[in-house]
Order: sequence, then C-alpha cells, then structure tokens
Amino acid sequence: MTADATKPASFEALAIDTLPARLGHLEALAGRVGPDALAWKVREVGDGNLNLVFIVEGPKGAVVVKQALPYVRLVGESWPLPLKRSFFEYHALTRQQARAPGAVPQVLHFDEAQALIVMEYLSPHVILRKALIDGRELPRVAQDLGLFLARTLFRGSDLAMPARARKADLALFADNVELCDITENLVFTDPYFEAELNRHTPRLSPLVAELRADRDLKVEAQRLKHLFAANAETLLHGDLHTGSVMVTEQETRVIDPEFAFYGPMAFDVGMLIANFWMSFFSQAGHEENGPRDAMRAYLLRVAAGTWATFRAEFRRLWRTERTGMLYAGSLFENRGDPLGAEQALDAVLHSLWQDMLGFAGVEIHRRILGLAHNADFETIGDEALRARCEAPALRFGRHLVVNRHRIQGMEEVNGLALLIEKETRA
Amino acid sequence: MTADATKPASFEALAIDTLPARLGHLEALAGRVGPDALAWKVREVGDGNLNLVFIVEGPKGAVVVKQALPYVRLVGESWPLPLKRSFFEYHALTRQQARAPGAVPQVLHFDEAQALIVMEYLSPHVILRKALIDGRELPRVAQDLGLFLARTLFRGSDLAMPARARKADLALFADNVELCDITENLVFTDPYFEAELNRHTPRLSPLVAELRADRDLKVEAQRLKHLFAANAETLLHGDLHTGSVMVTEQETRVIDPEFAFYGPMAFDVGMLIANFWMSFFSQAGHEENGPRDAMRAYLLRVAAGTWATFRAEFRRLWRTERTGMLYAGSLFENRGDPLGAEQALDAVLHSLWQDMLGFAGVEIHRRILGLAHNADFETIGDEALRARCEAPALRFGRHLVVNRHRIQGMEEVNGLALLIEKETRA
Repeated sequence: MTADATKPASFEALAIDTLPARLGHLEALAGRVGPDALAWKVREVGDGNLNLVFIVEGPKGAVVVKQALPYVRLVGESWPLPLKRSFFEYHALTRQQARAPGAVPQVLHFDEAQALIVMEYLSPHVILRKALIDGRELPRVAQDLGLFLARTLFRGSDLAMPARARKADLALFADNVELCDITENLVFTDPYFEAELNRHTPRLSPLVAELRADRDLKVEAQRLKHLFAANAETLLHGDLHTGSVMVTEQETRVIDPEFAFYGPMAFDVGMLIANFWMSFFSQAGHEENGPRDAMRAYLLRVAAGTWATFRAEFRRLWRTERTGMLYAGSLFENRGDPLGAEQALDAVLHSLWQDMLGFAGVEIHRRILGLAHNADFETIGDEALRARCEAPALRFGRHLVVNRHRIQGMEEVNGLALLIEKETRA
Repeated sequence: MTADATKPASFEALAIDTLPARLGHLEALAGRVGPDALAWKVREVGDGNLNLVFIVEGPKGAVVVKQALPYVRLVGESWPLPLKRSFFEYHALTRQQARAPGAVPQVLHFDEAQALIVMEYLSPHVILRKALIDGRELPRVAQDLGLFLARTLFRGSDLAMPARARKADLALFADNVELCDITENLVFTDPYFEAELNRHTPRLSPLVAELRADRDLKVEAQRLKHLFAANAETLLHGDLHTGSVMVTEQETRVIDPEFAFYGPMAFDVGMLIANFWMSFFSQAGHEENGPRDAMRAYLLRVAAGTWATFRAEFRRLWRTERTGMLYAGSLFENRGDPLGAEQALDAVLHSLWQDMLGFAGVEIHRRILGLAHNADFETIGDEALRARCEAPALRFGRHLVVNRHRIQGMEEVNGLALLIEKETRA
C-alpha cells in the first residue's frame, strides 16, 4: 500500500454537473442518496484552502464528497500539492474511527486515483469556529474533544500499539511530506521572521518587530519545531483547530485530518486549546449585539475542561490499556509496584503539559503573524479593534512558549489570559 | 527499494569451501583478492552473535565477506532474525561513509538476496574492546570516535538534511523492526525485571534485587525507552559499543551498523561512552600482569575526550553546516543574531548531555544484568573479583540514569567513577 506522489493520468477534478454521472454507479452513494443519480442535488461548499467539497443530496439522504486537487485551491496551480494527501486523510479517518469511535465522519468510499473520499454528511452540524464567533456556548466540546485527544493519541502510540504495527504505520505516514512541510514552515519558522507569505494587522507592526527580535522566543519556538519534527510519538490529526471540528448541541465531530503524521502528542492538544484561547481573545471584536463576558468565561472553561478531560482519560487508558512496549506492567503493576506506573504517568503528563503550552503559544503566533489567519480575528472589520484583540493574544502566546516549563496549571494560564485580555478594552 | 522480511528462496549460507565458487565471478572480490578464486584462502572468523564473517585472502590482497543468517547464530534456528538486517547494514554503511568519510570500512559489493556485504579487510586492526582488555592505550579513539559521532548524528538529522530526504530515509529504516525490538527489550526493559534471558554474576543478586525494586530507576529507564522509541532524530549506528570499533595506533574504524535506525542522537553517544566506563570498572579484573592505574586514567580521559570532541565538532557543524529546517539561519545569523543560534545550540547540547548520561547508565545495566554481557567483565575468571568490578559499575549506572538532569559535567561523572571504583579494591 503506497501513496503515489504524482498525479495519476486518470485524475479528473469533479464538477457539480459531472459528479452524478461519474459517481452514480457507486453503491456507497446510491445506497445513501438514492439510486437515480439524475435526481441528485449537488452543491460545492469547499470553504477551506485546499480541496473540493460537494454535498450530494437525494430522496434517501445526503453524503459529502471531498476531493483533493493537485494544487492549493486558495493559491492556484502555482502551488502544487500532491493528491496523496487524500490517501493520508482516508487512513487517518479509519484509524481515528477505530480509536475514538463516533468522533469522526463515517467513511463510505475511497478512490485513491481520484483522490476522493465519500463520507457521512453531518447535519445540522456547523463548524465550531463559526459557532464560537457567533457566541454560541456548545456544551459538549470540552468533554468530547478531550476524549478524542486522549483516545487517538494514546492508542496510536507505543503505549498501546504493537511496536511493529506502529513502525509500519510511521513509515506509511512519513510520506506525507508536503503537508508536514507546510506545518514545519508556516507554524514554526515563518511567523518569526519577515517571510514573504506573512501578513499581520498593520498597526501591530511594533509588537511584531519586538517578537521577531525576541531571542528567547525564537529559540524556544525552534526547540518546539525540533520536538515536532523528531518526536514521532503517535499518529496526530495534525491540524486540529476549531475549523476542523463540527458541532451540534449534542455532538462533536472532528474532520479534515489530511495533515496526519507521526508527531508529539502535545501538538494536537496545544493547537486545539490555543484556538479556544484565540477565540477568547477575539470576543471583544464580536460584541455588536452585547457583551461577551459569559462567552469569555465559557471559553476559558472549555480550555481548562478539554485539558482536564484529556488528562483524566489519558490516566484511565494508562491504567487499563497500557499494552504497548513502554512502561511495561512487568516492571510495575506485575511486581506489586503500581505506584511506579503512577510515577511514570505523572512524568509523562508533566512533559505533555509543558509541550502543549509551547505548541499552543506557537499556534497563536502563526495565526496572527503568518500566512493562515483565522476567522475569529479576521472577521473583526474594525482594524484598530482587531489589533487590540490580537496584541494580548500575541503576548500571551509569547509567555506560554518561553515560560512553559515554569507554569503550574490551567488556573494560572487562564488567569493570565483574563488579566491581559483586559488591555483590549482598556 | 524495499527490504524483504522473509528469506528469499535463493538464499544459501556461504561456507569456506563454497565461497570461492559462488563469489569468484565478482569483480569486487577478484579485483582485490586475485582473479584465480581457487587460489583464495578463506577463513570464517565471525565471533559475534549473529552473522557469518569470512576473510578471503589471495595474491593481491584480502576482503571481508559478511553474511547474515536467517536466525541468531548464537542461539540457533529457534530464534529467527530476518536477513534484511544486511540491507540496513549496507545502507547505514553508505550513509556513514558519506557523512564521516574514512570512518567505516569501504563497501565493495552488496547482494541483497544473499544478505551479504563484501567489504574492505581491515588489517592489522583489532577490536577496540579486546585492546582495552589487554591494557592497550590507543591514542586516537577519543578524537576519531567523537568526530564520527558528531558527523554522522548531525549530518543525518533535520539540522542538516533536507526534510524530504530525511523522512524517506526514516521510512526505509522503520522496517528494521526486529533489531529495534532487540534493543527495546534487551536494553531498556529486561534488565529491570526477572526476564527469562537475563543472567548475572550470582553474588550480585542482593544488589540486583535492590535495583529491580528501585522505582526511580525503573521509571527513568522507561522514560529513556520512550525517548529512544519516539524520538526519530537522526540515523543511529544503533549498537555502538567498543566491540563495534576496530583500531590500530593510527586508525579507528566503526563496523557492524545492522541495528541502524532513526533514534535520538544521545543514544549512540551514551552507549559508546558507557563502554569506556565499563572498561574502566573492569580493569581491576585484569591486573595479572601489574596494576592498571594508568589504564584507568586513560579510560576516563577517553570518556571525557570523546564527549569533548563530539561537542566541539557538533558546535563546528552547527556553525558551518546547519542547512536543515531546524534553527534556520533566517531567524538568527541572517538577522544579525548569531547569539540566538548559540543559545539554541547550548540548549540542544544540554539536552544531549542529559540524555547521553541516561542512555549510558542503561547500557551499563543491561551489560551486567541482561542477556548480552561484554568481555570486559566476562573474561574475569574469578567470580568474586568480577562481582567486585560489576557492583560499582551498576551503582554508577543507577546514579547516571536517576540523576542525569542534575549532573554538571564530565569532571563530576569521572570523579564519581573514580570514587566508587575504589570499592572494588577495598
């Protein structure tokens, strides 16, 4: 099983009018949507940067058809990006489904040559980021995402997997080079110097210059890049921000794992929680219809709750599913030393905590200083207000990256966020 | 390019009398040894645990033919071990040759199906371990091996390599599962509980029981295993002890990289230096022909010198060959901040130091408590004396593993070794 780096000759991008004829024969669609493909209603809804996304509806129901393009959709053919990312997305989805059942959309069909995945249509789900911008307090996200993180990260590591299977999988995903390269450069390096693709809200320039001259920050960001690049600990989602989560009041689903590869557990955790903190800092930009104090408090609860759930579930898995080659029970529980296993668990969680804070800080920086900004801040039309939201977020991120080894717990971090967010409205 | 995990149907073990007929057609041999294969003199000299090793001599010269067997030679067919280790050895040798020219034997021919490598015959070289047991002070080993470590480890990492090439290579070597498995179990886990294959000098039993009940030690050994398994930082030799080094007074060559895979830099460094410390602790067992005080002092100088050379060369490469994606010059030197790059280098070397000490301690333990002992201690016939040599080495190893984050430098470590080695002769 290999991923072809080049575009197969047979690849052809789908279009609204060609989709029914091309995919009408697939039982995976016909069974869900209805047998008469001519009666299908097809919409293209891809609002991301990379892919085509179709919703196909019919008398029986609906599915999503996601197709990769051989270039970055946002930029065009001048930035080629291999179709094989679809292969990695497919394999990541199947592994996530096995490790955290129900947390990702069900995959109905995969066509490697056409780089397309047919999957469950999630409705009435909305993108979590959008819901947070709208000021909606989703009750389940901390719990659901904390569980997703612990289950996928623990069960994909040498804590749980047979070593041979993990190494084979590591080799498979090592070929997802181009998408790793995007993360490596856009997240960890470009934001910290005047890279061509960077942009930022103009009036932040003095602060941006200060950060780019901040030696401790740059060194620590590179230490985190070193960890990210070298530490192939588990299969990551690789792009787990609030734009990769779909929600209702009752349900949370994680989508779009095309950046999946083997990296440090703390990366997914830190990126996700960073997006809650960014939403927190952005709320002052969304107070047209009234103050967002309750929403701010909610977001800090979600950040803390995601981490608390992650820890609790990780502890539970450590005690009940530690079947891999690391921290073997033969050294601890089986010799009457369960406290030894607990001591090791504390050490693992302590490292995870510190690294998570660092990755969170870097994620905040790249979303404000780099190429790929996020809607939380971008939808704030008033540029002065946007800069007032972004500035404390940048300072907060710097604090996390540089001081991550000395921060005690979530209470402190959230306390700091509260303290410096007040600048925004001073 | 793939490695076949199974034994090809065509594989046939060489023998002294079949070798000339089977390999006589190879220009790589005939050119070096002489065209008339019937005039070749063939000896089998494999004294390791795994493979066949032939020396083929003729009128023009000599070569070594190393062939893997589909099982562990030491144990027999009941312990199968894939032939593909020869494939990994070949690829490791070519990479080491490119990164540290002259430090490994020249490869003359590789036959994947027959799992055989024809290589330069090193003469009058002897195995470094043997020379140290004999009390020979080799003048070049610290310098040569420090350079070998820095050059192979730096140049095989994301500090120097293009990210794509490193990831492809990582995937290639991820298939060296069976040999990694040996290291993972025999080095990091088995020594710390009553594993079936373990053995130790009987009168050490009370100390062994103490170590196996030592929670801090076991937890830290598993933290190191976690680092070893997850941190795919660079292409390691993977088995770099003094039995994998051949020496003369003028030259040092590193052999046998069949355990090669992507792991943490500190592993090779720590394993090698641990073997110098073990030689140091074993000297009291080899004083039949006079005291070994000078040899002991020499060995501590070699331990310190290897580390000092490694650091110096690593620093030099950092300043002159840091072309990889980590700690990019665009963030530091190119912005007029060379001190930023130096600060990062200090952080990297500090981590390496701590991890190196930990891996060294584990290596000492597994050589005294595990399956694969080493001749430094094993050749001490007097069991009481052997135990007196091994006991302080075990205590020393425990100190390194548990206290590695708090040890300042080589002077302290060597000072501790000197202090507790005196127990041996008390």
